[in-house]
Amino acid sequence: MPSSSYAEQSAVTGPLAVTVLGLGPMGRALAAAFLAAGVRTTVWNRTPGRDTELVERGAIGARTAEEAVAASPLTVVCVVNYDASDAVLRRDAVAAALKGHALVNLSADTPDRARDTGRWAAEHGIAYLDGAIMTPTPTIGTAAGVFLHSGPADLYERHRPVLDALGGTHTHLGEDIGRAAAYDIALLDIFWTAMTGYMHAVAVAKAEGISARELTPFARGIGEILPPVFDGLGGDIDDGTFSGEGNPITSAASTMAHVIHTSEAHGIEAGVMRAAEGLARRVIGAGHGADGATRMVELLGRR
Amino acid sequence: MPSSSYAEQSAVTGPLAVTVLGLGPMGRALAAAFLAAGVRTTVWNRTPGRDTELVERGAIGARTAEEAVAASPLTVVCVVNYDASDAVLRRDAVAAALKGHALVNLSADTPDRARDTGRWAAEHGIAYLDGAIMTPTPTIGTAAGVFLHSGPADLYERHRPVLDALGGTHTHLGEDIGRAAAYDIALLDIFWTAMTGYMHAVAVAKAEGISARELTPFARGIGEILPPVFDGLGGDIDDGTFSGEGNPITSAASTMAHVIHTSEAHGIEAGVMRAAEGLARRVIGAGHGADGATRMVELLGRR
Repeated sequence: MPSSSYAEQSAVTGPLAVTVLGLGPMGRALAAAFLAAGVRTTVWNRTPGRDTELVERGAIGARTAEEAVAASPLTVVCVVNYDASDAVLRRDAVAAALKGHALVNLSADTPDRARDTGRWAAEHGIAYLDGAIMTPTPTIGTAAGVFLHSGPADLYERHRPVLDALGGTHTHLGEDIGRAAAYDIALLDIFWTAMTGYMHAVAVAKAEGISARELTPFARGIGEILPPVFDGLGGDIDDGTFSGEGNPITSAASTMAHVIHTSEAHGIEAGVMRAAEGLARRVIGAGHGADGATRMVELLGRR
Repeated sequence: MPSSSYAEQSAVTGPLAVTVLGLGPMGRALAAAFLAAGVRTTVWNRTPGRDTELVERGAIGARTAEEAVAASPLTVVCVVNYDASDAVLRRDAVAAALKGHALVNLSADTPDRARDTGRWAAEHGIAYLDGAIMTPTPTIGTAAGVFLHSGPADLYERHRPVLDALGGTHTHLGEDIGRAAAYDIALLDIFWTAMTGYMHAVAVAKAEGISARELTPFARGIGEILPPVFDGLGGDIDDGTFSGEGNPITSAASTMAHVIHTSEAHGIEAGVMRAAEGLARRVIGAGHGADGATRMVELLGRR
């Protein structure tokens, strides 16, 4: 069992220590936060030269990934995706150096990739946690950071003192190693869909002679409506009531058609909203027009 | 000039008075707010029987639309769209009764329809303002309501005392009669795109064994990120910097691909996100991969 083997070999007894693999903007922010919290921090990046500032601030610059991971009981890897983390981790020398150590992968990818990495880690005697960072680089080391973790609960608890050095809120979502990535995907789905909606809205506004700055305070107002709306919909969906709270999906579909019409009349493609309206029309076609837009969840989930 | 003709014939001198045409949920909320503020309120709805509760609270129930609009210097119409408001307003008897009176159309539709109605009103000697209600029914009559108006500034100022009886924040956006509808369309574009993203995210989360209720606090967190993000992007777009604040669109496209992959691996269609990713890929293909997602605005606006 990787976690007990790890516990035997490297219980956290002395000063806290961590290795950070990957020194892009997020990896550098993580290493800087560890250093600021007084954690002994070893750093490595595939492309050399990224560690200069961190080493000046007290980080230990490792020459190789295997040297880096051997230096600390816990390694945090944060690269662009799991193709990149595989390229760093899945080499014999690195896997051997990680054996009996713990690894947290904070790179973003799909739940399947997290589960696959969990299997690889188990085969190599590596204690593995998967994680996701939900907030941008400037929040790292502050109270505003949001981190999600999944994997063995005892392993998570053992390394909380190091992870807490990153500041912010850390939530352990469960033993399923893919769970943090699943939350990540769902939340990024909301974020990037909303962001694309914002970009399209600004394009339409500009065509109507409204600048992005003029739209900003009102766009902010729409953004502020969303959190309480999301709060109200979770129960409506889980309970299968789909009430829409007096806002029928026929009304939403009519609004979507107005957006598409205005956009396309200005020569601005409306592919995102066309896809959204298609979902609404299918819900209506299935006889649920008087229900809320939450019926879309049911429609999408049907195989 | 309709507005001076109106000023001569029906300057607001006595107690405030208003007519509300359309008694759906929003129309009833508007009439109730006028009544609560002590405004003499005349109501009418195409389908009879909707005014019972309002008449009990002191509203005057008119038998016809022409009788209703004749009873007040200002008429507020709020129906499902401009097909519906045309069906009420564009009849000879109603247009004649509105001559020299003022009309505010708070129904939702496109800027073109608002401008067309402005032309019709001018032809019939009706002083016309167009408006949009940006917040849901329960906010009407409270400080939380948000109302947008466009059209002649003097006309708007003259009727502010009545409009203010609805509570909330009223903003006059300019003389272009279509401007309130243009803001409305842009803001609803953001809202319904984001809402569709939320529905899709919940469908994906459920396929991963995460309930909507479990996702809710984190979905709220994503919602809370949006207003400050929107604040930061307006200038980036207007100034054409498209910096993305260190978050390149290549990274967004990679995230979008993860969402699509996870969704479709569960048999959940990802048409909205596929359209969004398409925009991101086209920005990258045009050589702007190191820029922010704000480049989408430029891409969309290009004819």
